[in-house]
Amino acid sequence: MKAPFFNAPIFRQLIEFKSSTYTYIIGCHKTGKAVIIDPVVDTVSRDIQIIRDLNLDLIYGLNTHVHADHITGTNSLKTVFPTMKSVLSSKSGGEADKYVSDGEIIEIGGLKLEVRETPGHTNGCLTYVEHSLRSAFTGDALLIRACGRTDFQQGNPASLFDSVHDKIFTLPEDYVVYVGHNYNGVLQTTVWEEKNLNPRLTKSKDQFVEIMKNLKLNYPKQIDKAVPANMVDGKGH
Amino acid sequence: MKAPFFNAPIFRQLIEFKSSTYTYIIGCHKTGKAVIIDPVVDTVSRDIQIIRDLNLDLIYGLNTHVHADHITGTNSLKTVFPTMKSVLSSKSGGEADKYVSDGEIIEIGGLKLEVRETPGHTNGCLTYVEHSLRSAFTGDALLIRACGRTDFQQGNPASLFDSVHDKIFTLPEDYVVYVGHNYNGVLQTTVWEEKNLNPRLTKSKDQFVEIMKNLKLNYPKQIDKAVPANMVDGKGH
Repeated sequence: MKAPFFNAPIFRQLIEFKSSTYTYIIGCHKTGKAVIIDPVVDTVSRDIQIIRDLNLDLIYGLNTHVHADHITGTNSLKTVFPTMKSVLSSKSGGEADKYVSDGEIIEIGGLKLEVRETPGHTNGCLTYVEHSLRSAFTGDALLIRACGRTDFQQGNPASLFDSVHDKIFTLPEDYVVYVGHNYNGVLQTTVWEEKNLNPRLTKSKDQFVEIMKNLKLNYPKQIDKAVPANMVDGKGH
Repeated sequence: MKAPFFNAPIFRQLIEFKSSTYTYIIGCHKTGKAVIIDPVVDTVSRDIQIIRDLNLDLIYGLNTHVHADHITGTNSLKTVFPTMKSVLSSKSGGEADKYVSDGEIIEIGGLKLEVRETPGHTNGCLTYVEHSLRSAFTGDALLIRACGRTDFQQGNPASLFDSVHDKIFTLPEDYVVYVGHNYNGVLQTTVWEEKNLNPRLTKSKDQFVEIMKNLKLNYPKQIDKAVPANMVDGKGH
């Protein structure tokens, strides 16, 4: 049974509870073509069911970066949707079917995902902007009243500061920001809010670098398993 | 600092992880007036911060029904926003500042929340429809590929079947359905999907009643504490 044609894009936000990771499915109603952003291997069967329920043709599995806190679901998705291509930044150093760079536009049906490179949490962090949804998918670069840590995986606070200011805060202020994680159950924010209320990113670059150097965070539980797995697109899981 | 004026309504979905309850903040950008739907006492300080960040004037705290699985945050919100009024169905039997009935329209700035009575999970279950958002907030009447249980608190499967078919499935099929709970991390569905894919509500009324009578669910952990507290608007918590 085919889902009917509506005007607005298909949009689904999903949460994987263990790592508080947000996954997104975005689709074009007219063509049925769709992408998934940051799927998690643990919840991939749930996501497959939704894609099937909506009769979507899954074109790309996009990872905003090589994750350190969960294993990507892209490889598992490819076993079910063999024409799906996994996507990573050309600067990520990881394995994927397709690499993208700053300024590139990923077209799927009537949707256009603009690629913006936002390094700093990792070298290969991407933000995807979908203008018809007036939304940006920032992965772990910009978080809600926070940002990704910069103390491992080529993290660099100065470059994260520049990424957020040059590539995200320059978007229209009403754009909704959909992030990679939130541990307080807040599911979305806006460019306006983070530009005005983010306790770290409203500071000067020097102050930001100082804050980020002194976070004293624990070593992530999953990193030794997750990063090697995600460098090969989640294979073997 | 006042949030700027944008065209679209302010919309926030939030999750309380312990009971997997979804809370919603809906506001009018032009007037700053806002409502909160189904706040949870455990996450009320988070919600207060968002309301303050967005400089919103909180007019109503709406409970879709007298909850059995968590304590409402409406009373705590009133201590911080003393002009806020709590709202319940006139058929709920619970205490609130304002009672609403089927067909009533709650106006807050440019937003209009249409009240639809959808009993069956409890006598006083309400669904709120906001047409400019093309969205329905169904509480525990209609859930994602499921529905509220009908084995306590005046639950009645036949009346729940009629409520969903007469008051929710008659909405335009592209309307997004925002529910009271989801335990799989799925954050939204549509009228079309539930009309076509809900494993219980696509059955005949007799079959539905039979399914609901045989669910053999555990007695809810929080019910003996939550229901008495929620009958008095969450006071004492």
